[in-house]
Amino acid sequence: MSSMWGTTLKISLFGESHGPAIGVVIDGLPAGCPIDLEQAVAYCRRRAPGRTPWSTARQESDQAEILSGLYRDRTSGAPLAAIIRNRDTRSADYEELQRKPRPGHADLTARQRYDGYQDPRGSGHFSGRLTAPLTFAGAICSQILAQHGIRTAAHICQIGAVKDQLFNPLACDQKQLDALSGRDFPVLDTASGARMAEAVLEAASAGDSLGGAIEGAIFGLPAGMGDPMFDNLESQLASLLFGIPAVKGVSFGAGFSAAAMRGSAFNDTPAMSDGAITFLSNNSGGVIGGISTGQPLLFHVAVRPPASIGREQQTVDLLSGENAVLAVRGRHDPCIVPRAVPVVEAAAAIFSLDVLLGARRWSHD
Amino acid sequence: MSSMWGTTLKISLFGESHGPAIGVVIDGLPAGCPIDLEQAVAYCRRRAPGRTPWSTARQESDQAEILSGLYRDRTSGAPLAAIIRNRDTRSADYEELQRKPRPGHADLTARQRYDGYQDPRGSGHFSGRLTAPLTFAGAICSQILAQHGIRTAAHICQIGAVKDQLFNPLACDQKQLDALSGRDFPVLDTASGARMAEAVLEAASAGDSLGGAIEGAIFGLPAGMGDPMFDNLESQLASLLFGIPAVKGVSFGAGFSAAAMRGSAFNDTPAMSDGAITFLSNNSGGVIGGISTGQPLLFHVAVRPPASIGREQQTVDLLSGENAVLAVRGRHDPCIVPRAVPVVEAAAAIFSLDVLLGARRWSHD
Amino acid sequence: MSSMWGTTLKISLFGESHGPAIGVVIDGLPAGCPIDLEQAVAYCRRRAPGRTPWSTARQESDQAEILSGLYRDRTSGAPLAAIIRNRDTRSADYEELQRKPRPGHADLTARQRYDGYQDPRGSGHFSGRLTAPLTFAGAICSQILAQHGIRTAAHICQIGAVKDQLFNPLACDQKQLDALSGRDFPVLDTASGARMAEAVLEAASAGDSLGGAIEGAIFGLPAGMGDPMFDNLESQLASLLFGIPAVKGVSFGAGFSAAAMRGSAFNDTPAMSDGAITFLSNNSGGVIGGISTGQPLLFHVAVRPPASIGREQQTVDLLSGENAVLAVRGRHDPCIVPRAVPVVEAAAAIFSLDVLLGARRWSHD
Amino acid sequence: MSSMWGTTLKISLFGESHGPAIGVVIDGLPAGCPIDLEQAVAYCRRRAPGRTPWSTARQESDQAEILSGLYRDRTSGAPLAAIIRNRDTRSADYEELQRKPRPGHADLTARQRYDGYQDPRGSGHFSGRLTAPLTFAGAICSQILAQHGIRTAAHICQIGAVKDQLFNPLACDQKQLDALSGRDFPVLDTASGARMAEAVLEAASAGDSLGGAIEGAIFGLPAGMGDPMFDNLESQLASLLFGIPAVKGVSFGAGFSAAAMRGSAFNDTPAMSDGAITFLSNNSGGVIGGISTGQPLLFHVAVRPPASIGREQQTVDLLSGENAVLAVRGRHDPCIVPRAVPVVEAAAAIFSLDVLLGARRWSHD
Repeated sequence: MSSMWGTTLKISLFGESHGPAIGVVIDGLPAGCPIDLEQAVAYCRRRAPGRTPWSTARQESDQAEILSGLYRDRTSGAPLAAIIRNRDTRSADYEELQRKPRPGHADLTARQRYDGYQDPRGSGHFSGRLTAPLTFAGAICSQILAQHGIRTAAHICQIGAVKDQLFNPLACDQKQLDALSGRDFPVLDTASGARMAEAVLEAASAGDSLGGAIEGAIFGLPAGMGDPMFDNLESQLASLLFGIPAVKGVSFGAGFSAAAMRGSAFNDTPAMSDGAITFLSNNSGGVIGGISTGQPLLFHVAVRPPASIGREQQTVDLLSGENAVLAVRGRHDPCIVPRAVPVVEAAAAIFSLDVLLGARRWSHD
Repeated sequence: MSSMWGTTLKISLFGESHGPAIGVVIDGLPAGCPIDLEQAVAYCRRRAPGRTPWSTARQESDQAEILSGLYRDRTSGAPLAAIIRNRDTRSADYEELQRKPRPGHADLTARQRYDGYQDPRGSGHFSGRLTAPLTFAGAICSQILAQHGIRTAAHICQIGAVKDQLFNPLACDQKQLDALSGRDFPVLDTASGARMAEAVLEAASAGDSLGGAIEGAIFGLPAGMGDPMFDNLESQLASLLFGIPAVKGVSFGAGFSAAAMRGSAFNDTPAMSDGAITFLSNNSGGVIGGISTGQPLLFHVAVRPPASIGREQQTVDLLSGENAVLAVRGRHDPCIVPRAVPVVEAAAAIFSLDVLLGARRWSHD
Repeated sequence: MSSMWGTTLKISLFGESHGPAIGVVIDGLPAGCPIDLEQAVAYCRRRAPGRTPWSTARQESDQAEILSGLYRDRTSGAPLAAIIRNRDTRSADYEELQRKPRPGHADLTARQRYDGYQDPRGSGHFSGRLTAPLTFAGAICSQILAQHGIRTAAHICQIGAVKDQLFNPLACDQKQLDALSGRDFPVLDTASGARMAEAVLEAASAGDSLGGAIEGAIFGLPAGMGDPMFDNLESQLASLLFGIPAVKGVSFGAGFSAAAMRGSAFNDTPAMSDGAITFLSNNSGGVIGGISTGQPLLFHVAVRPPASIGREQQTVDLLSGENAVLAVRGRHDPCIVPRAVPVVEAAAAIFSLDVLLGARRWSHD
Repeated sequence: MSSMWGTTLKISLFGESHGPAIGVVIDGLPAGCPIDLEQAVAYCRRRAPGRTPWSTARQESDQAEILSGLYRDRTSGAPLAAIIRNRDTRSADYEELQRKPRPGHADLTARQRYDGYQDPRGSGHFSGRLTAPLTFAGAICSQILAQHGIRTAAHICQIGAVKDQLFNPLACDQKQLDALSGRDFPVLDTASGARMAEAVLEAASAGDSLGGAIEGAIFGLPAGMGDPMFDNLESQLASLLFGIPAVKGVSFGAGFSAAAMRGSAFNDTPAMSDGAITFLSNNSGGVIGGISTGQPLLFHVAVRPPASIGREQQTVDLLSGENAVLAVRGRHDPCIVPRAVPVVEAAAAIFSLDVLLGARRWSHD
């Protein structure tokens, strides 16, 4: 507890990696929004394994079944529930890990939290597989946002030491989005992408894994959304992003670079352009005082390397109470950053729709 | 809306910089905890202005008056409310800013959010002054945590290009805490601290400001607290930290450095030591799968440079609809990082008590 | 929105009467509790149609499928999701009602709320069928409560003008519970029950329906649970009970009778009995100042007569904008009180487990 | 915990009867609403003691001081905090009650809940005095609602065996509201009111107290507000009303009378009138399926007799562990129903503004 998130729009995630099904309930969707399920499937397919040379061999169609909330291809206003059946499960891989917890993995903390009663198969509720229903929820939200001119995007901005270009901070650059849309390996600069893939394969061949970072963006969010103090946009989005397994850092705009900046360089200068206010930079990442400026909302997410690696590691044997050696078997991604990109986009979409639905439209007339 | 935070322990902040008073309601405190108000005053005094060569000339005693929730020097179980009167206010400083918003400041977003009805004096509810009641709440929580062996700490880890040492990641190092406790300028390494102060004065003399970063720690939090998915410790703490004005990034453990790490280096190796599990490193920052490992919970916070600077900046004139030039007058810190340190400690204490109070102690007997 | 309820234990309901499935996610269950699914099925069967002479002809097995949260027949600590497939649906019955809303029914308000996009088939998300997953959630909670000596019970206390006996207000009377457990028509006094059934059949034969009331009880809830002001036990339980369709009133202890009582009669006199405090009456219904007294928690629920009746009624024709006449066809209960009894028991169980899990066990040691 | 209520509009109450001050934070008010503080004072004065022959001799000006959230006589959008100082306190009255708990009072449950650390003076946080800041919050909300054509009203509908007339269920009857507005003893029928007062004085002269009931109404709430399941209007309003000390029952429309009604009588017949839908009755109390019909929202509240009575009662002596006799001294109302009327109005106003602010205005354009 708790696998629920949201204020006006609320999602409730459930499922374990090797249980009968995983799923999501989306509560608070406006009624009457047309939903294209084929488009949602395509959105989610980007998260599915098997699109990179190294991704896990587990095959899942990840086809969501809608149980409620749609009527005649539109949202009915009632909670939208969707489930995804688990099929290709090999639970035998996880027996040893109950005794010898994987270093860096939730095996130990889950045991402490749930007194050993957690479902350990495929990491149970801790599995990255739970991001499948999260992504599905984001796919639904994205379609509704699109009807209001809002879209979210993300790309790999770092794997190992290799960095990608960044989004144009001043405006939605359609060329950048087009470049990303066709790619299995979502980077803006293909040359960097090739070097990233190389770094991952190198780590994988050493029985190791690699971390990375993702840049996310929300384009089209109107100015004046959010609040100071605790319902600020950064708190809300960060609380959702840290719910994605493996995320260890979230920053907005210049982020940690701000530590070395002077105010004169950091402050985004406003300027009049045809009667409207524009800005000459976007170090604030589109949020000031917790409230949207109308610029692209830009953020970064740090992704740790996967804990499950093939090479031998020191660990403890909980039965014998002695140190032990472990080599994790089974199917594990050496780098989850590419598959995390649509998850980050989805999270940003869920967040954006929650913000949009909760925005006050109070009239003094 | 909303200036409330928390799940089991809830705080509700209120007040504007130049209004009659600022304050906080703390709801959910356990009954019967002894509270030493003098100690709380000392805790808060570290946030007060006037302890660095450059801090704002505004003088506030920041003495909190307790309105409820204490009875015979112990918590009564009812909400604890405390207010701090505003005294030294010079609202005239803020008239021009209504017309010419400060670049990088919430002047513009507040106007868009509240249709111009916000209290602009001293930045109103957006003022860093709101961190005074937040710090007071943290002071109260700290005393209750201390009774359970938990304490939070923080220090400046970067200002400009200068970096401080880091906390010992493996255990609470009393020497480090002692070093911090006596200092107006809370750094672990005094030589670095001197260079940081120099960098700030240099920026100040150029009519400019400077950003920085803070490292925070929670020592003594038991293993097994928190949850996977959205009630994970990282989401909860980040949502509170991003509520502190000027925070632009939050990371845990290795944070964004994880992007360049391999799993074999990132994974914290467990080892048996006298029948208990210890770890050889703490890249996870004390949280795995959203749940505490029992190691120190370590995090970093990025702090942007203050928006209000004396040197001339380009901005817009909302009345004439033309570009304009602005030189902010009034009393503004050229760097708020030192004063933000106790605020971060306080936020970590509020978070920790919320976690501790919400922790399930379910017995199957 | 919102179909979620709860503080520490949270449930999320979804589904429409004629959609693919209805279901529930239960978040926050403690890990390791043994669950007997056959017993849960028996618990829910009492709500199923077909157990009274008059109940709707719709046949549903209402067999829940568990999708997550159980592992080796115990709760895993992760969200428990269960779905119930809809099978025997006859959507044609509802076409006319879109045009001619049923008096007293949500047809009109749903249309206003959802701009006509709601799923109208079988009343969609407004259907009493949604109480099936609610009852299932209660069945799960009941089993966990039983392990802690807490149980909930309910019976029909009024239908039409006929009233049943009441629960013994001073203690759990096993004889009363035994009497109820075997009955399709859950009353304490069978003679009254027979007259109630007669009254319903009489109404039914006139193409009409009948209301009633239910008395509920929670036995074994420890003293000292709950809080004054808004997290009081009465607010929490009432907020859940009013979520059951057709409930129009909720009262505790003497309830509305208190309006005509003097304090000397209302006050429950405490008395020492073998060193423990007992009470000579229970007009408070086991709650004083929002907090449990340790006595049985007693409440009443008013249930309105079903809106869908066969006899002709005046209504409006939304297409022609004129008055119209309507005779509702289809399968509708003339009285839902007997089937609502297990729903009330289930709601009381969900509430009780939420209270128990949220109760503070703070130690000053 | 928890003394917070609300979804979009949130209030946070604090204070103890004999502590320095009581107060409220109102979070989520729209910015720019004009507030007339004198009018708010007049609104609250109706709750103050001393307006009935029998009310407590405690004299409190109950003048609220605004600490934040108002700027130039309009809401600023930031939390509005107000405090009321406690002045006329006589704490000596409560010493004996710590040892000999009052029957029917929270003395015992508070002790169990807070391990004896609660503030017992004047019943502390359990005091009816906490309804003063609640009423103030309602006064603020009322003024904003009035700008949108919504108003709430209440009257004593029963004291002892005497009943008042009821509100016109079909429309806001200005004559009824005018009749109420001038009265210290808010009834629609003055003759009944006189008999009620007589009954109270009779009870008082016997050292006893008397209960009653209040009818409340919300006029002008648009149709289509609220939701099915748990965010239904009845759950939300009931959860707030049960937070008022002494409330033991809440019902809507026909309420518990529905138990004896047939559907043909209960169903409110819609009819076309000049192109708009009207209803011929209002047994639903303006809420169907959890959603407003556009009719007046009508509800009843049962109020128990005050526990503190002068005549001798049996109780227990917690020190000696034996039965004991108690005669409560101090200043206590023999009937709190008249003073509870503005509290109920205020609660209805807070609820209504929360509903109005949270209502979705989603456009498909």
